[in-house]
Amino acid sequence: MNVTHNEAWKILNDNDDFLLLTHRAPDGDAVGSLCALYRVLVSLGKNVGFILDAVSRELAFLTEGLEQNKFEPKCIVTVDVGDKKLLGDALEAAYGDRVLLNIDHHATNVLFAENTLLDADAAAASEVLYDMFAGNGVELTKDIAMPLYVGMSTDTGCFRYGNTTAKTMRAAAALMDTGIDAAAVNTDIFDTKTKEYFALETMAMNSIKLYFGGKCALLMLTKDMYRRANIAENETQGINALPRQIAGVLVGITIKERESGSYRISVRTREPVDASEICAILGGGGHRQAAGCELTANPRTVISTILKYTEEALREHGFIQ
Amino acid sequence: MNVTHNEAWKILNDNDDFLLLTHRAPDGDAVGSLCALYRVLVSLGKNVGFILDAVSRELAFLTEGLEQNKFEPKCIVTVDVGDKKLLGDALEAAYGDRVLLNIDHHATNVLFAENTLLDADAAAASEVLYDMFAGNGVELTKDIAMPLYVGMSTDTGCFRYGNTTAKTMRAAAALMDTGIDAAAVNTDIFDTKTKEYFALETMAMNSIKLYFGGKCALLMLTKDMYRRANIAENETQGINALPRQIAGVLVGITIKERESGSYRISVRTREPVDASEICAILGGGGHRQAAGCELTANPRTVISTILKYTEEALREHGFIQ
Repeated sequence: MNVTHNEAWKILNDNDDFLLLTHRAPDGDAVGSLCALYRVLVSLGKNVGFILDAVSRELAFLTEGLEQNKFEPKCIVTVDVGDKKLLGDALEAAYGDRVLLNIDHHATNVLFAENTLLDADAAAASEVLYDMFAGNGVELTKDIAMPLYVGMSTDTGCFRYGNTTAKTMRAAAALMDTGIDAAAVNTDIFDTKTKEYFALETMAMNSIKLYFGGKCALLMLTKDMYRRANIAENETQGINALPRQIAGVLVGITIKERESGSYRISVRTREPVDASEICAILGGGGHRQAAGCELTANPRTVISTILKYTEEALREHGFIQ
Repeated sequence: MNVTHNEAWKILNDNDDFLLLTHRAPDGDAVGSLCALYRVLVSLGKNVGFILDAVSRELAFLTEGLEQNKFEPKCIVTVDVGDKKLLGDALEAAYGDRVLLNIDHHATNVLFAENTLLDADAAAASEVLYDMFAGNGVELTKDIAMPLYVGMSTDTGCFRYGNTTAKTMRAAAALMDTGIDAAAVNTDIFDTKTKEYFALETMAMNSIKLYFGGKCALLMLTKDMYRRANIAENETQGINALPRQIAGVLVGITIKERESGSYRISVRTREPVDASEICAILGGGGHRQAAGCELTANPRTVISTILKYTEEALREHGFIQ
């Protein structure tokens, strides 16, 4: 059942002994939403625990002072989760069918929870939480404002992407009014790269090739590159943005060799090319401007296959004669 | 003389036949401020002209529809200019001593104009203009809101840097209320690199070396690299940010060989290291976290000289034993 901000707030107030969960491989919005909700529930005098998958270095400070799971929870609340599958196998099995309340912003939310507070126009689950808190007189302290700010800034590329609305900006302003050091956290999240990431990014840039008169850029990361840069594949998400950044590129392709030997392909496009259409042909899917698929073949075949369907998409839109 | 927002507005209303100027090598805030003020003055029924130094590709759309200098101007108005020297030699000679009004946000403003509207807490001159417009009932149309938005977003790294305040965010929200496509312009400005820039950036990253246990990163761009990437030195400002992005780096150094054969050095630091102190020793200057100087010597001597003073600064703060 869909609930309003105020109905969700009432559910939180009427219950106790909460366990907070979010999706596996949690990003800034997942961690930020969970930490902010945790602190607000504690301020209401509730018992609260949480379970979080591995949190990346630059987000770890948000969880300082939070205590994990110290009692038998009665009520499961999830944040930023579009589908219970995204909880990961263990948490899905344990809690997936008994989520009392899910607070989310994904238009694709499958409404798996008993109650769902969903605002698909919000840039982040943190923005949905902010609206619920602001509408119910919650006093915003720095330790509540900071995780909400991180949630909004990370899901919007620091207020850069199309999901950023005037309402998002005003919410962030209210959070900044508390005196949080937004610039320090932005520097850490958006302007800092580990030595290992920097080394891998350099290799990635060296490997970029242009195709179809510069309309397509493709890069490939191999297991050997991960080894040389001393970095794990799951820390290399940012690389996927590189090929499309080149002016004139309509299809940016990143191919990553997996430990298993298969190849994960990320496709990012500019209008009017549809990334999800290209990936669907190869058994994958995603959004219009960012999609993915996976192929098991030798690297040459992987490259020629994805280039073939990219060429067809460019031809269909008249970019290739 | 310092004037308030309302006094500046009165000066604009009481006069006519304006010529608008800004600093040479205009950035997004310079171009945005000038274009927004131009359009507002036209909406007041004023005669307006402007002179702009070369505008970069991604900002050129802001000037569409503006007519340059079609009459003998009576009143010179400057925006985003901290010192008349920054107008460039020709404009300084022609107009530097007869600026009726300067609208600016640089704390270092030398008050060269007859009247100065200065708000050093504003993130951008565009924010100062926004405040003046909003306080005097100017209707914000898209073609006024867009250049102001670009001014604010470019001077704040898209609302990322420490100069971004809650007030900046609310001003940007009001501009977004007009329906401007902020995301499209952000993509173009922040997420797009020319092939030439991308090629040079790759060379720059390949050239980075770490010193003093990773506390210092140094890269060097040579005339030969500019030639190979087919790019002019003045299009390579963004490169200066790279060395300091590496986690653990307190001093990021970029050395660029100039056509003349001398070397321009950019130093960016993290607290507590003071970039301007390092550069001052070598006859340069700047801000605490970003400064510069120029040396004429062979490249080995240039590198060893800047590393020597970097080492002293790191030692002084106890980062080297």
